[in-house]
Amino acid sequence: MIPTHWNRPTDFPIAEGKRRIRIDVSYDGSLFSGWQRQHNVRTVQHEIEKALYKILKEEITVFGSGRTDAGVHALGQVAHFDTANHSVPIEAFALALNQLLDHDIRITKSSLVDDSFHARFTSLKREYRYYTKEIKGYTPFDRNRVCRIRCFPSLKLLNSYAKYIEGIHDFTTFSSAADQSRSRIRDVFISRFFFEDSFNGSKVLVYQVAANAFLMHQVRSMVGTMLQLGEKGAPKEEFKRRLDAKNRFEAGRTATSDGLYLYRIDYDS
Amino acid sequence: MIPTHWNRPTDFPIAEGKRRIRIDVSYDGSLFSGWQRQHNVRTVQHEIEKALYKILKEEITVFGSGRTDAGVHALGQVAHFDTANHSVPIEAFALALNQLLDHDIRITKSSLVDDSFHARFTSLKREYRYYTKEIKGYTPFDRNRVCRIRCFPSLKLLNSYAKYIEGIHDFTTFSSAADQSRSRIRDVFISRFFFEDSFNGSKVLVYQVAANAFLMHQVRSMVGTMLQLGEKGAPKEEFKRRLDAKNRFEAGRTATSDGLYLYRIDYDS
Repeated sequence: MIPTHWNRPTDFPIAEGKRRIRIDVSYDGSLFSGWQRQHNVRTVQHEIEKALYKILKEEITVFGSGRTDAGVHALGQVAHFDTANHSVPIEAFALALNQLLDHDIRITKSSLVDDSFHARFTSLKREYRYYTKEIKGYTPFDRNRVCRIRCFPSLKLLNSYAKYIEGIHDFTTFSSAADQSRSRIRDVFISRFFFEDSFNGSKVLVYQVAANAFLMHQVRSMVGTMLQLGEKGAPKEEFKRRLDAKNRFEAGRTATSDGLYLYRIDYDS
Repeated sequence: MIPTHWNRPTDFPIAEGKRRIRIDVSYDGSLFSGWQRQHNVRTVQHEIEKALYKILKEEITVFGSGRTDAGVHALGQVAHFDTANHSVPIEAFALALNQLLDHDIRITKSSLVDDSFHARFTSLKREYRYYTKEIKGYTPFDRNRVCRIRCFPSLKLLNSYAKYIEGIHDFTTFSSAADQSRSRIRDVFISRFFFEDSFNGSKVLVYQVAANAFLMHQVRSMVGTMLQLGEKGAPKEEFKRRLDAKNRFEAGRTATSDGLYLYRIDYDS
C-alpha cells in the first residue's frame, strides 16, 4: 500500500476527562446536501451534531470517515466524537440518537474507542457501490436509490475497463477541479462489475470499488465514463488511454449521485 | 381448484368500437390511501384514471385485479380499461402514463387484450409477499417498505404454521368483519417463509403466499398471527387450532401494511 498518511499524526489525543465514541451511520442521501456541515442546508453531520447537543448539552464536532456529496447514500459511514459527558451508556447513544434523528438517518451502532482511532485518518479501506437498473425493470422503489440506464452494456467489456483501475494510479482524469488533495495517486484494491437480483426479480448492475481513499467525485466519474464507453462498445484500450492521460478533460460524464452508496469502511482493529 | 367463479360471466364484452388495454402497475403504497377510488383521498386507481383522462379526453374506469389497503405496495398489480380512442399506440400507454403520473406509480407494461380478459375475474392466482427485518439490520432504505421486528422467530417453527395454510380452508379466523365475500373459503397454493439477503447484507425474512383469491386483510392477519405465535414459541397445533376455529377472535395482531407487496397476478394466457 502507498503511504497516504504523510504528515498525519499517529495518534489522536483525547482531552483529559473525555471519552471517544464511534458511531456507525446509515443514511438515505436523497434529502441531504451531503455529509458536511454547511450554512443553511440540511447535512448529515449537522443533524447528528444537533441531536448530540440535545443529549449531551455540549457542543460536539462529529468527524466522519469522509464527505459524501448531495444525494449520495451510506450504508456504512463511520464517524466519531469526543464527549466529557459520562452519564450516557455507550450503547445507548445509538438508541438516543435514533429517537431524535429523522428517519433518513439511522445510527446502527455506537461503541467506545481509544485515541488510536480516528474515523478519517485511521481508515485503511473505503468501499463504495454504485447501483444501476435498466428502465424496463425500474420500479417506484428504485427512485433516488438506483441509477436508471437504457440498457446494460456488456458485463465483460465493463470489467475489462474496471480491471485497469485496480492498483496504484494517478487518478487525475477522474478528479474534480475543486479537489484540494496534495496527491491524486490512490491505491485501488477492488474494481469490478457484477449482477445482483433485486427483490422484484429484475437485475441490478453493481459496480464495487474499494481503495485506501478516493478523490472528490472520483467514483461517479469513473463509473460514468465506463458506462458511457460500454454503451458505445469502446475497446478496453480506450479506457486505459483516458486513465493514463491524467487529464480531467478525458473523463466521460459523471454518473448521477442517486446510485452511489458509501458501503463500508475498514479499520485496523 | 374450487369454483370461485360462481355466477360470474364467462366473458366480459367490450362495447362496439372500443378496445381493451391491460396495464401492469407497480406502486409504492406509502402515500396512497390504497388502490380503490374514494372521495378526497389519493388512491392509485384514481391517479391512473385522471392521467388516462388527460391522454384520452374520455372518462375511463380502471379495473384492478383487486384492492390493496392503504400503505400496501405492489410490484405486479394488473388492471384493464376499455377505450374508444384508437389514436394512441398500445405500447405508448405505459410511456404516456408514466410521464403524467407521480413517481410512486409506474406502469411497467401496456398490452392489448380481448374480451376473455378481465383483470379481476379471470385471474387464476394472486401472490403476496411480506418482508420483515430485525431492528439491528434496519436501514433508512427500509422505512415504509419493510416491517421491523425485534428478532426473527425460528424459521422452522414459522414454516410449521405456514404449512397448515396451504390447501382449501375456511379462513374466517383471518377475515375482517367488513369483508362482504359470500364465502370465506379460499384455495392457497403456496404458503412459506424463507430468508433473502438485502443489499446491505442484512437478512430479510419473507413470507410468500399465493392463492386463488384472498379475503380482506387476510394476508396481514395470517402473517401477524404467525409472527406473534412464533415469538412465543407456540407449537404448530396452536396455529392449527386457531385456523380451524373459524373465529375472528382467534386471530393475533394484524401485521402492519408497510411490509406487504402484491407481488404477482397470473392469468390463463
